[in-house]
Amino acid sequence: MHHSSEILLGLFIVYIAAQIGAEISQRLKMPAVVGELLAGVLIGPSVLGLINVNEALEVLAEIGAVLLLFSVGLETRISELRKIGTTAFMVGIAGVILPFLLGFLWAHLAGFDTPRAMFVAAAFVATSAGITARVLQEMGVLNRVESQVILGAAIIDDILAMLLLAVVTALQGGGINITSLLLMLLEAIGFVIVVVMVGSYLMKHSTHLLDAPISPHSPLTISVTLCIGLAVASSYFGLAAIIGAFLAGLVLSETVEHYTLDKELLPITALLVPFFFVVTGAKIDISSLGNYSALMAVVVVTVLAVAGKLVGCGLGALSLGKKSALIVGMGMVPRGEVGIIVASLGLQANVITGGTYAIIIAMCLLTSIIAPPALNKLLAGVNDQHKPSRPSR
Amino acid sequence: MHHSSEILLGLFIVYIAAQIGAEISQRLKMPAVVGELLAGVLIGPSVLGLINVNEALEVLAEIGAVLLLFSVGLETRISELRKIGTTAFMVGIAGVILPFLLGFLWAHLAGFDTPRAMFVAAAFVATSAGITARVLQEMGVLNRVESQVILGAAIIDDILAMLLLAVVTALQGGGINITSLLLMLLEAIGFVIVVVMVGSYLMKHSTHLLDAPISPHSPLTISVTLCIGLAVASSYFGLAAIIGAFLAGLVLSETVEHYTLDKELLPITALLVPFFFVVTGAKIDISSLGNYSALMAVVVVTVLAVAGKLVGCGLGALSLGKKSALIVGMGMVPRGEVGIIVASLGLQANVITGGTYAIIIAMCLLTSIIAPPALNKLLAGVNDQHKPSRPSR
Repeated sequence: MHHSSEILLGLFIVYIAAQIGAEISQRLKMPAVVGELLAGVLIGPSVLGLINVNEALEVLAEIGAVLLLFSVGLETRISELRKIGTTAFMVGIAGVILPFLLGFLWAHLAGFDTPRAMFVAAAFVATSAGITARVLQEMGVLNRVESQVILGAAIIDDILAMLLLAVVTALQGGGINITSLLLMLLEAIGFVIVVVMVGSYLMKHSTHLLDAPISPHSPLTISVTLCIGLAVASSYFGLAAIIGAFLAGLVLSETVEHYTLDKELLPITALLVPFFFVVTGAKIDISSLGNYSALMAVVVVTVLAVAGKLVGCGLGALSLGKKSALIVGMGMVPRGEVGIIVASLGLQANVITGGTYAIIIAMCLLTSIIAPPALNKLLAGVNDQHKPSRPSR
Repeated sequence: MHHSSEILLGLFIVYIAAQIGAEISQRLKMPAVVGELLAGVLIGPSVLGLINVNEALEVLAEIGAVLLLFSVGLETRISELRKIGTTAFMVGIAGVILPFLLGFLWAHLAGFDTPRAMFVAAAFVATSAGITARVLQEMGVLNRVESQVILGAAIIDDILAMLLLAVVTALQGGGINITSLLLMLLEAIGFVIVVVMVGSYLMKHSTHLLDAPISPHSPLTISVTLCIGLAVASSYFGLAAIIGAFLAGLVLSETVEHYTLDKELLPITALLVPFFFVVTGAKIDISSLGNYSALMAVVVVTVLAVAGKLVGCGLGALSLGKKSALIVGMGMVPRGEVGIIVASLGLQANVITGGTYAIIIAMCLLTSIIAPPALNKLLAGVNDQHKPSRPSR
């Protein structure tokens, strides 16, 4: 069989697993993303071994995440985001400090010296907005204030996490250059501000920007170009690619075409986003959790990671009321791919061992699996407009 | 920069090149695909070197081709295809025999022994339906009898090319097993017939097949599952993956949902199909055509390849009238990826040299670049319903 056929076969398995997982999940009144993640675990190398996470699947997963955050950005209004700026800032800061301290504490007790413990702690910090965004989108609550706070805080969180990683990496190397750190901070913040300011200005003042070319799909293709372009740019500025995609959506939400765009994106996201979740699930190596002490470590680390965000972000969002603070806290729990990247860097640099690596990865993925159903439950309790799912026949 | 960011950057470059190419092409009243192919040549390793054709791009290109043929299938009615069965059969057969003879003749004169010459000739045979299908779709003429004949003949052509490749490969090994060849033929034909028969029966008699699950996008996701599934299955039966995708579309064109599907697929194909054409273009190695004798060989081989299909398929379609026969012949000219695969197999097995390989690849790609504008011109002459493109402002 030709090589590309094997890759197509892999896509087919991932895709069908995603649909079955989502279907079961939704019939159990859970968000589709839970079923997709678990389907990924099941077909992944450590359980059934039906797929390997090769480069093709990685890329499709990345595109899925980028398009997801783009569509979330399209549904978010900058004016709404401005209103909750202070709260989002508090949530972002508190949600970085507490998890870092808890992670440091655990690593220190587990016998790591201070610089290494700080590295491990850095993996506790960064929220992956993708999983939460999907749950919020699925439940149709992206316009709620809690959702806005979570999305705003995720950007601040990402900037802080990047800085923290730079500090910690510099510490391993032996020295910190305050000037270059400040420069990085300014660059990242500057990038976000410039994109939002210039972008929304351009969109408001040039209504014909998107309908100049001939093709009937130009608004879509130009928007997706902007999305991928800003995703690439944001990774040049040290931020996650999905932050750039979110900003692209945010900017385009100011255009007259944003309703059409939203509608045209639906089939695309329906097709590509599940790859992100199945592939994330498939990366869980169940076997590394085979012995008792590793399992205990995973449980402890996961509890600390959940508690850190729940309490830290919750306190930051207390001004919204207790219930909303809890929703915000839970929304910030998933670590997903950001923590995984930190852990991979640590493994490469020999800062952490393979065992610690597996524990951190398991924590990142477990937080991603725990958060959606919890968030679903919390939101179902407060969301009056929550539409019941279509009854099964 | 993180590895996935580099891949995103590659996607970005391909995507933006595709749009600029398509835009220029359409303003010059040419099909978008011509601009996309040339944009690919330009950004490819042999000219500007902005991208490398890595696995990620290959997969996106393959998905693009699969989705393209799927959407073409959706716009094709089985009943229409049945009417032109005999003509399509004639076109398929004649379009295999003449190019094979011409290819064999050239290879023989160029000094290849008989088994090797047969291998080279096999690369002259298989039409790549993707490029033609896109031109026909862009011009809105998929319902014309010539389009139906081309699509039907492309399936027959693919079956024959596969058989021929099997024969030629067996010849290199020293012997032919008639039983196993017959078995392959039966399998491939059986696959096509079973899919069309069973599929269209199921679609006609189970209107609720596609609306059973909960998600609002189920018709789309289930259809795409069927599309990828049949693409994989068809490659197991030795046929091109795009044949399976076309059959999936054909079967689903019998469902009540096919209009909705068609509409939902538009943004997806607008996003992914250009990757196929840009990547195809990027594979052209201009440098291998640097010296005079290679250049001459490419010209001769390309002329023979074009003439073979134009005359062979044209004769097969003569019952439709001269003009239509010419359109069918031109529609069968592009060799695209099928010829490339044959040449790669030959290179791996040391049947042909790197020089011959480059000549065949250049021929495959040149036929793909020549056919769209020619087809465009021929169709514009006969197509009364041809809608003019949106005027530029």
